This record gives sequence, structure tokens and C-alpha cells, in this order.
Amino acid sequence: MPEFQLRFIAQELGLVLQGDDVSIRGMNTLEEAGPHELSFLANPKYTPQLAETKAAAVILTPKHAGKVRRALISANPYHDFARALALFTRREGTFAGVSPLAFVHPEALLGDGCTLYPFAYVGARAILGAGCTLYPGVYVGEDCRLGDGCTLYPNVTLMSAVELGRECVLHAGAVLGTDGFGFTRMGDGIQKIPQNGFVRLGDRVEIGANSAVDRGALGPTCIGDDSKLDNLIQVGHNVRLGKRNLIVAQVGIAGSSSSGDDVTIAGQAAVSGHLRIGARAVIGPRAGVPHDVPEDFKGGGTPLMDGQTFLRVLALTPKLPDLHKTVKKLEQDVDKLKSGPASQE
Amino acid sequence: MPEFQLRFIAQELGLVLQGDDVSIRGMNTLEEAGPHELSFLANPKYTPQLAETKAAAVILTPKHAGKVRRALISANPYHDFARALALFTRREGTFAGVSPLAFVHPEALLGDGCTLYPFAYVGARAILGAGCTLYPGVYVGEDCRLGDGCTLYPNVTLMSAVELGRECVLHAGAVLGTDGFGFTRMGDGIQKIPQNGFVRLGDRVEIGANSAVDRGALGPTCIGDDSKLDNLIQVGHNVRLGKRNLIVAQVGIAGSSSSGDDVTIAGQAAVSGHLRIGARAVIGPRAGVPHDVPEDFKGGGTPLMDGQTFLRVLALTPKLPDLHKTVKKLEQDVDKLKSGPASQE
Amino acid sequence: MPEFQLRFIAQELGLVLQGDDVSIRGMNTLEEAGPHELSFLANPKYTPQLAETKAAAVILTPKHAGKVRRALISANPYHDFARALALFTRREGTFAGVSPLAFVHPEALLGDGCTLYPFAYVGARAILGAGCTLYPGVYVGEDCRLGDGCTLYPNVTLMSAVELGRECVLHAGAVLGTDGFGFTRMGDGIQKIPQNGFVRLGDRVEIGANSAVDRGALGPTCIGDDSKLDNLIQVGHNVRLGKRNLIVAQVGIAGSSSSGDDVTIAGQAAVSGHLRIGARAVIGPRAGVPHDVPEDFKGGGTPLMDGQTFLRVLALTPKLPDLHKTVKKLEQDVDKLKSGPASQE
Repeated sequence: MPEFQLRFIAQELGLVLQGDDVSIRGMNTLEEAGPHELSFLANPKYTPQLAETKAAAVILTPKHAGKVRRALISANPYHDFARALALFTRREGTFAGVSPLAFVHPEALLGDGCTLYPFAYVGARAILGAGCTLYPGVYVGEDCRLGDGCTLYPNVTLMSAVELGRECVLHAGAVLGTDGFGFTRMGDGIQKIPQNGFVRLGDRVEIGANSAVDRGALGPTCIGDDSKLDNLIQVGHNVRLGKRNLIVAQVGIAGSSSSGDDVTIAGQAAVSGHLRIGARAVIGPRAGVPHDVPEDFKGGGTPLMDGQTFLRVLALTPKLPDLHKTVKKLEQDVDKLKSGPASQE
Repeated sequence: MPEFQLRFIAQELGLVLQGDDVSIRGMNTLEEAGPHELSFLANPKYTPQLAETKAAAVILTPKHAGKVRRALISANPYHDFARALALFTRREGTFAGVSPLAFVHPEALLGDGCTLYPFAYVGARAILGAGCTLYPGVYVGEDCRLGDGCTLYPNVTLMSAVELGRECVLHAGAVLGTDGFGFTRMGDGIQKIPQNGFVRLGDRVEIGANSAVDRGALGPTCIGDDSKLDNLIQVGHNVRLGKRNLIVAQVGIAGSSSSGDDVTIAGQAAVSGHLRIGARAVIGPRAGVPHDVPEDFKGGGTPLMDGQTFLRVLALTPKLPDLHKTVKKLEQDVDKLKSGPASQE
Repeated sequence: MPEFQLRFIAQELGLVLQGDDVSIRGMNTLEEAGPHELSFLANPKYTPQLAETKAAAVILTPKHAGKVRRALISANPYHDFARALALFTRREGTFAGVSPLAFVHPEALLGDGCTLYPFAYVGARAILGAGCTLYPGVYVGEDCRLGDGCTLYPNVTLMSAVELGRECVLHAGAVLGTDGFGFTRMGDGIQKIPQNGFVRLGDRVEIGANSAVDRGALGPTCIGDDSKLDNLIQVGHNVRLGKRNLIVAQVGIAGSSSSGDDVTIAGQAAVSGHLRIGARAVIGPRAGVPHDVPEDFKGGGTPLMDGQTFLRVLALTPKLPDLHKTVKKLEQDVDKLKSGPASQE
């Protein structure tokens, strides 16, 4: 693990150091930090922990600065915590250069400073930008194009003609550019609709472990700049996601649907095919999205409901048996009432 | 990309060409086709686009033939569109032969014309039919048997004793033949039930990226001829799927369940264990199937409902809060009524 | 397939053999067993099959011993069936030693008797215990530590600093230690929260095919001794699972949630982040868990309900349209009643 002086960290982050210098070996929460770890206070509910933390120093706002022995004064402690974390992040591996155990087709082109681990494969006419890293078991198909600084972790598969922008990160086992699910029942058989399109990712897109992004049937499946997808996600053919989408694990997005910029979709949600999710929409966990979603929508459930309705439906669902009982009782009462006042005695 | 004369395409598909010849470089929708692309009209709602399309030619029925400069006359334009697409589909890769960087166990048998990319592995006593293609990172375990013309895309795993019929296609990252989930709680511990069975696929079965098909506990897990499974699907031990099943992404099918021929299961649905889905049933997206399903059933939801009931339940779910309000109001009204007409004044 | 004398099997399992000896080539159900297969009777409903089975011998309780020609007498036939199965289980592969086609970093340490298949990769400073097996396409990142007797099936990825206890089994395509999904929206952009933690598995943990276990943001993601996870499961960063958890396929567990010992979670369920599932809880299939769950809880549904409520809600859900009709009718009746007895004529 790297080790830094606190003064150096303050300089790197552009923060004021209050207190004396000390060597820092890592970062941790207030509760778990040791005497050589840097911590942070972002959520006010943890303020009482300042009195007891063993952290060497804490990133916090000016108003809490007096409560700890050493402070890095920050206008946005969570943001600066993330920036400090980056100082302590190490690369996954230290291998450098092109391994003689990698396979690079003679017609492929590698940019300057690419790292190819053993057992990486680069097909004919693939073009890699400068500083790309391919871990073991990576397959880059023919005619793929990778922008500068892309990282493909172990066992990532890019089928032919996939295009990546700059600095994309594909986590282990992710598969891009496989055939979309195009079949039609024809009489007594099934006909495959050939999938002749491709996949195009913008800059700084991140795809999680074991996720799958299908190639278009015709033309591309697209994911916009800075969008981040978690693990085990399915993106169907000809989907077009906007910029800065955040898609949580195990979501499925069916073919030809699209999203605007800054959309968030929580875990295990499902989006039907051929629909449009407006910019900045937030779709809750497990939601089933059967139709277009307006911009700035926030909601969840199946079918998709606005947030308030959804929460009330969730709260009322376990009361369904009581509701049935109440209605049955009402029916009996009304029957009595209908048969006249005489029978009520 | 390949390029064909339109006249050649007409001959290949057995269609009448109306208009002059032109070179065709690809296919596209009416809206997006360029002057060297072939398009098609299958859905009548796009008929108005015939007037404005830039497509070089359009596959369409005789009744629309007069509306475009060049037509391929077809009784079933969507079908012929798919057939034409196949002309423009290129193979994923152009590698041929058995790479010296592949590993083939001396006791394995490869049929004529097999292609093994670098870093493919074939275990002892595995038998591959003629014309099989194994991409990089493919693992074929001991005693596997592959029919002629199977394609295993990168990083596919076939655990030992998996059997594939002819012309199966396994997309990147698919895993066949791993242990089923067989454990029982025994006193204070957990006992593993050894999974001694295997996996058997029929002819022309297709399995999507990162899907998993478990081996049987005893005997096989089977998938019938021409069945097509999408990405990220889980098929449990001893499942038996019929012929021509279409299973969409992220479906889970629990152990020992079976299906008849021509079943369709939409995305993210879940099928419980030890049940039977009748032939031609269509199960909707996200459905939860807790019991046997009759032949020709169509429906969805959790629990599984017939299509009409399901759609009404879906429509009424967001109205649950209103229903509760109405019932509360009715209770008050009935209470008043019960206390007698006098109190109503 | 191995072949054993029935007398030998009886000795191995410590069971009394009733009847003569015979050679046994495998195991099967009463219905499907052939004349050289061993079967078992665990579920009383199959007792009638004893009369007709072709099995060479049957594992059963003393009370049924007289009904078959050859019996292995057992106090717990299902348990002894599982033990007998283990005799017939063969290893996935027979390769032994360290393949010259594997890559082992000079600073890595391999324990005695490790097997490394071709195309396995072990990074710098990784330490493998004795008797570990790495199949083709396995990636063991830098600074990983594996206990004795671990098995990593093909195309498994361990990112750097993953720790495995003894005798862990990771099925094909499983990915451990990839970045957790840590991103925050900052003004117009997205900031990545670096994921600096790691993954730690206890002893005898099993992880299914194509499952993903994220590294902690800070500190570890932990899975306790003897826990078994099925295929296609997502485990988020800083999750802590207890001992002997059984987690069925396609479950998702969001970041920082934890479970006690002996918890069971059925297929496709979802657990939200930062919550606690008590020991011995049983969570049903497809359940959505939005809050803490007490010890010994049994239930299902979304939101999570106790078992009885859940079953009633399930049963009443398809009756929602009828309920609406009934309430509408009640409203009309009450309106009539409110307008006075006169109007009822």
C-alpha cells in the first residue's frame, strides 16, 4: 500500500491542513480508522463519532474543524474523500508491455504504451488507442476500435466491430457486441434475424462484471459518455442510452429502447422494448417500465408509478387480506340494510 | 463489408426484381437507408415512408411495388428481409485452422475443418464434429461431444461430458454443465449433493452471453432442438426444455421443471422447480410461475394469471390507494345507515 | 465412469448390506435406475416404486428393507444417498501439475501439489495453498491469497487482493473483487468513488457460475464459512454474509447489507443496501427486502411479508378486478340506501 504525508495529501487536494503532519497509509470510516488512516465526515449523523475516532486526520467542513486534532478543511467532504481515495488506489496489476504470450493479429494496430497481458487476443484490423490495457483472457474481435486509455479487465469479450471511446473501463467477464435476440416463429420453425450491427460506447463509459451489451440488428447499440453500468446487466440490441446514465446491477433493458441524459435505473428493474425514458428520470429498484417515461420522472413499481403512489401501494399491499374482509363485511351489512329496517332488529 | 448487385440478391432470394440493377452495400430501415442500402416494408404503418426513403431498393409485397423506383417483390417481406440480411452477415472472425497456441489433449478428437483460436482448450476424450469453431478462452471439458458445425464464442465453458447437437451456437461467456445447486441443511452443517449428471443440447440450440445451464444431479439437463436462449439466463439441474423454445434474457428456470415444444418465456420471468409448462404457452415478462401451466396458455404476472386478468390487475394496482379510500368512506356511510334513518338528518 | 462392488459401497458408507453382492456402475432414481445402478427411498410417496424398480439395490430405512432384493439399511437414506453419490463423482479434469502454458509470476508462491491448467494466470505476490486447482482462463490477481484445496473452474476471475479460505469452489465465470458500484452525481458530471477494499471468503465457500462479488469500497466484502451461492448472483460492496448461507440463483444483495448465520434466500430475490437479515431467516423467491429482517423470519413478496400474509396476498391478487366490481356495486347500493327507503321501491 502507498503511504503519504498528510501535508502532501492536503497539497494534492488543494485543502487547508489544520494540525501537524503525519504519515497516512490509507483511508477508513470514522468508526474503523486507525491512527495512520485518514477519515471524513460527510453525513451529520456521524458527527458524534468525531470525539472518539482514532483517525489520524479527518476531512470535514470548517464548522467541525475544532473537534479533531488534525483536519483537512473542505467545502465538500464527500467529494474530497473520493479524491483522496484515488491517491490510495493501486492499479489492478503491474504488468507492462506486450506479453509474448498475448496474440496480436499482424493486421491489428496498437497505440503507444499499450499493455497486453498473457492470453489476451486482438483480432485482425482492430485498432487500439494509446495506453490501453488488456488483461488475460480478453478477446478484442476484428475491426474493433478502442480509444486511448481503455481498460479491459480479465475475460472481457468484445465481438467484432465494437467501438469504445476514450478511457472506457470494462470489468471482468463483460461481453459487448454479441448477437441481439432476434428470432421469429415461421410456420413450424424459428428463423434467426441476422444481427449485422455493432456496439458503440462513448468516452469514460464503465460496464460491470458479467454484463452483456448486444450488437444492433442494423446499426449500433449506443451508450453515451460517462454512463456507468453495474454488474450482470442486459442491454438489448439497438438500445441507445444517453450520457451520464447510472444503471444498477441486474437491470434488463429490452431492444430499441432509449434514454436521455442523467437517467438513473435502480437494481433489477426491467425496461420493455421500443420505449423512451426522458432525461433525468429516476426509476426505482425492481420497477417494471412498460411505456415511455417523461423527463424528471421519479417512481417505481410494476407498472411504473410516481413515487408517492408507489409508496402507498407498497404500504397497502400487505393489507389486501384485511381489505377483502372489510368489503365482505360491508356486503353483509348492506344486504341487511336493503332488506329493510324491520330486519335490523 | 460485402457488396452485391441487386440482381444477384434477387436471384439468391428467388424474388422478382422490378427496376434497374444497382450495387448494394448493406441493409437498413426505410428511414435510415442510404442510396446503396436495401430496405423492406413489413409493417403497414411505415408505408408512407416509401415516398421519402433514400433506399436503393425495397423488399415489399406486390401491392406496394409501384411506389418505389426498385422493388424486390415478396410474399413475406420480413422473412425475405431476414434472408437478405444473412447475405451481409460476416463471420465473427477469419481465423482458420488449429492455432499452435490452442491446447488439444492428445486423446481428444477433432473433426475435419475445425477452427481453434489461440487459447482454446479441449480436454481428454472430447470429440468435436466437423467444422466446429472454438474462439479464444473456450474450455471444452473431458468427454464432451460436439456435433458438426458448432460455434463456441470467446470464453465459453463446457464442463465435462456436455453434449451438443449439430450447429449449436454458444455466445461469449456462456457456461454449460456446472454443478446444480444441490445442498441440504444437516444438523448444524450443509451437505453438498454431488451433481453427477450432464447437459445435453439438441441441434441448432443457441445460448446467450453469460447464461448458465447446470448439469443434472442424476442424468441430463436437456434443451430441445432449435430452442434459443438469450443472455444471463439460469437453467437449473435436470430442467428439460422442449423444441423451439424462445427464452428471453435474465429468465430463471429452477431445477427439474420442463417445457413442451414452442414455449415462449419473456424477460426476467421466473419458473419454480418441478413444474411443467405446456406446449405453446407464452409467459409474459417478469412473470412468476409457481405451478404447472396448461398448453396454449397466455399470461403473466405473479402469481401467473391469464392475460386478460393480468392486464386488469396491472391497471388496478395503482388505484389501490383510491380503493382503500372508497371502502373507508363506505364503512362510514354504512355505519350511519345502520344507526337508523333518524340519524341521517 | 467408476464401478464398485455393492459390498464395497456398504463398507465405505458404514451401512448394512442385505442381499448378495453385485457391481454398481452409477446411481439413479427408483424409476430410472437400471440393473447395475444403486437407488434410494427418501420420500415416502415413492414407496410403491419399490415393487417395480429395476435398481440393483436401494438405500432405505429398516422398515422398507423387506421390499427389495438388495438393500443398504440407513437411518437417513437421503443423506447416505448424497454420500454414495460422492463415490461416483469424478473430478472435472485429470490434468495434473503446472502446465508450461500457464503463467505464474516469479513473485507468486504456489503450495505443494497445485494444478495449473494451460492459460491460467497467477499475478505477483499471489499465494496459493497446497492442492489448489486453477482451470484454463483463471485469473488470480496480485496479492491474492488462497487457502489449501481451492478449486477455480474455467474463466474465473479473482481481482487483486482477494482472500479465499480453505477448499473454496468457484464455478466457471465467477468474478470476485471487481469494483463496487460507487458513483455520485456532482453538478453536471459523475464522480467515481474509488473502490479500495477487497473480498474475503471463509472456508468451503462455493460461488456459482457467472456470479459477481464486488470488493469493498473500504475494507472487505465478506462471505462466511460454508456459505453457498448459486449462479448469476450479485453481491455488492461491503456486504457481509454469515456462515452457512444458501443463496439461490440471480439474487441481488446491495452494498453494505449483512446476514446472520444459516440464512436462506431464494431465487431472484433482491436485498436493499445497508440492512441486516437476522440469523436463520428464510426469504422467498422474488422477494424484495427493503428493511431489516428479524432472526428466524420466514416470508416473501414485495414488500417482504410474513409467509402467511404473503400467501394470502398472492391468492387475492388475481381477485383485484372482482374486488373493484364489488366495491362499485356497494357504492351504488349505499347511494340508494342514503337517498331513503322511499326510493327503494
